[in-house]
Amino acid sequence: MQDIFRHLEERQGQALETLIRLCRQPSLSATGEGLAATADLVASLLQEAGFQTSLLPTQGGPPVVYGELAGRSPYTLLLYNHYDVQPPEPLALWTAPPFEPTLREDCLFARGAADNKGNIAARLATVRAFREVRGELPISVKFLIEGEEEVGSPHLAAFLRQRRELLRADACLWEGSGVDWDGRPVIILGVKGIVYVELEARGAARDSHSSWATVVPNPAWRLVWALATLKGQDERVAIPGFYDEVEPPHAADLAAADLIPAQEEEQKRSLGLKGFLLDLAGPPLQRRHLFEPTCTICGLASGYAGEGVKTVLPAAARAKLEFRLVPRQRPEDILEKLRHHLARRGFGDISVKPLDMGELPAHTSLEEPIIGVVAEAAREVYGAEPVIYPTMAATGPMHPFVHELGIPTASTGVEHPDSRPHAPDENIRLRDFLLGAKHLAAIIGRLSPRRP
Amino acid sequence: MQDIFRHLEERQGQALETLIRLCRQPSLSATGEGLAATADLVASLLQEAGFQTSLLPTQGGPPVVYGELAGRSPYTLLLYNHYDVQPPEPLALWTAPPFEPTLREDCLFARGAADNKGNIAARLATVRAFREVRGELPISVKFLIEGEEEVGSPHLAAFLRQRRELLRADACLWEGSGVDWDGRPVIILGVKGIVYVELEARGAARDSHSSWATVVPNPAWRLVWALATLKGQDERVAIPGFYDEVEPPHAADLAAADLIPAQEEEQKRSLGLKGFLLDLAGPPLQRRHLFEPTCTICGLASGYAGEGVKTVLPAAARAKLEFRLVPRQRPEDILEKLRHHLARRGFGDISVKPLDMGELPAHTSLEEPIIGVVAEAAREVYGAEPVIYPTMAATGPMHPFVHELGIPTASTGVEHPDSRPHAPDENIRLRDFLLGAKHLAAIIGRLSPRRP
Repeated sequence: MQDIFRHLEERQGQALETLIRLCRQPSLSATGEGLAATADLVASLLQEAGFQTSLLPTQGGPPVVYGELAGRSPYTLLLYNHYDVQPPEPLALWTAPPFEPTLREDCLFARGAADNKGNIAARLATVRAFREVRGELPISVKFLIEGEEEVGSPHLAAFLRQRRELLRADACLWEGSGVDWDGRPVIILGVKGIVYVELEARGAARDSHSSWATVVPNPAWRLVWALATLKGQDERVAIPGFYDEVEPPHAADLAAADLIPAQEEEQKRSLGLKGFLLDLAGPPLQRRHLFEPTCTICGLASGYAGEGVKTVLPAAARAKLEFRLVPRQRPEDILEKLRHHLARRGFGDISVKPLDMGELPAHTSLEEPIIGVVAEAAREVYGAEPVIYPTMAATGPMHPFVHELGIPTASTGVEHPDSRPHAPDENIRLRDFLLGAKHLAAIIGRLSPRRP
Repeated sequence: MQDIFRHLEERQGQALETLIRLCRQPSLSATGEGLAATADLVASLLQEAGFQTSLLPTQGGPPVVYGELAGRSPYTLLLYNHYDVQPPEPLALWTAPPFEPTLREDCLFARGAADNKGNIAARLATVRAFREVRGELPISVKFLIEGEEEVGSPHLAAFLRQRRELLRADACLWEGSGVDWDGRPVIILGVKGIVYVELEARGAARDSHSSWATVVPNPAWRLVWALATLKGQDERVAIPGFYDEVEPPHAADLAAADLIPAQEEEQKRSLGLKGFLLDLAGPPLQRRHLFEPTCTICGLASGYAGEGVKTVLPAAARAKLEFRLVPRQRPEDILEKLRHHLARRGFGDISVKPLDMGELPAHTSLEEPIIGVVAEAAREVYGAEPVIYPTMAATGPMHPFVHELGIPTASTGVEHPDSRPHAPDENIRLRDFLLGAKHLAAIIGRLSPRRP
């Protein structure tokens, strides 16, 4: 494998150039900005690397970029990525503009650098290295790069059901992982589900002078009162039945979680935080983070929020509300329970609009052989014992791969714990970018048929 | 008085031109934009009308435009106005740009047209008419036009105490009034007090990925929980002691309030409202509107509030919170009770920043002779019985005039009930603009010394 590793080192400039091209191109699934252009760019990058590509339509969403490249063996690795990114706001908190990739010390800063254009570029570099050094790939690779992961992949499950044959594979490598604070490679075997809604209260037809607050309903109060019934100061979700379907984590998963090295000081420093919620620390902190469902206000907006004073009575108030779900919780069920709760508590006037059709939690067993391969390859490349997460706190559309296509799935990647995905100054370190490419090379090497 | 009235009719075009010049000039006390230029413009308009003017400094705020013009009699009328306006947001809801005054049918639309550049222009037209028709003013007039009424006039009380001699007058005419839905002139004898604060909760140092919501404090939840303790769904303010100092309205004030013609259908249509708060109607609605203090969320902001989905855990959450106060309530006392309540309920982490030093409620008695003069003049000019509000639901810095300078004060003006001050499509009707000028002329006429 040293030939491939050396080639990756020598050609890192080329891989970085690919990444910078990708990051310069905005691709906001929240608004649609730049998605078509990015899909074209990604497809042409795959073609340059030797893939046969096509832009496959989804039912109402941006196209999936699909590429396949047959190797010496029919063993097929499916690589999942996404070409969309989160909105860059708040812009004022970026050191450099989010779509002007900037190198500072060992880091590349740009929206999407970590989540997850860096991963796309690293994987492409690995495929190019095999072809340039050895003339072919030892195994077959399929790339599936979607364009709406950041809005909850609303069309991906249907797409996978339709394309079951095309996507047939032996294992799937997910995106979204990387190294921990001590440089240990992190492998993730599951995701939480999600449902994301917008609540809206409405009052008068227009904003009015706040002196009317004596007798005109204020939707900001309605929204605040309604939200306050959803979660208590004990941080338990107060929607009746919210926890009913939760399957307690298996003993093996809890044991794996407890093995994860604590990195609390580093996490607090990165987040800019004095202490964790409820003063948690140690295994209870880790368990809550991985295995507890959440109810989160992601945004609030009403009336005047600019500088200084405006004496206004708002006409509307909105909240973005997110639930992260754990195994056996289902988005439709949670949505129904939310609606029922609001109606029962007298907030039937507050509209609940699902902005995301929801994703189901997913999980691959620690016993799957591919997990051993990914872990061994990581041990070799990173020179450290890999950290295995039985599941993660975040969400991805992993469920249809694991539970519809039936492919064991593990997440790897190029992020580091201060990569700030979804936040200002998103970045990756160049050394993690190179290690990510080498990790995939080592996985492919271990999956290669022995030469006769 | 017919000579003056005819002159005002003939020269309405000139008055309108003055108003359009004023409205073209943004003057946002919330941000400071355009205040200096507007003060210069107002001073030069006063000079053109014959006033001796000066820009008098305030301690830290924009200057007060002061003008005086001696008349035949030493009887002095002080005219209070302000040259600042509210922020124009939300811009998308304006039919035409807010600082491009636009005539549609009988109305002039522009930010400030009603509140209260229209009033300044009408009063200037009256003074010009006397000088052009009669060569002099029958009484003396002083103009005090401040630049921060819309942010609560934080420097006006100190200014008035300093300039007590300069501002000596027999009566004061306030701004902010006009006609009701049936065209009856409205005269207002009091205002509510106000205190306006910003609450802020802070969490991590930066916005972070919402999957951290398991273990990272969410300031949006903190703010929602804190706000929900301030007012109940019964619309009573729940801060302990909030109502302690409230002086119940006097019987004469209640009787005057009950005489105010109900215009509920028109109000509902104008506000775009199905029904009033708590299903109120009739005298209880009017009494609540005039005599009840309020606690109002004027704005909420946290995290991502744009289109679509952003899975973000906010670093901060802010609310603009306003209290309107009735006689005997004091801003400092209410602020202290708010802070004490939050601390006692475990929300000491939420900062309370006063954005407005506060204003005290004010009230002029129905028995003052000037009130009779203003009412008779209104009866003559409008051809209708005036409606007298013992106090109004809104606020103005009337307290230092009434209670420091000791001058009886009545509010008159050029607004109509659909003028939308503080809201998009603010406007006045040209006929009210003319009537406002004539009303001042008739008041001056009644105050003139009889010729020997």
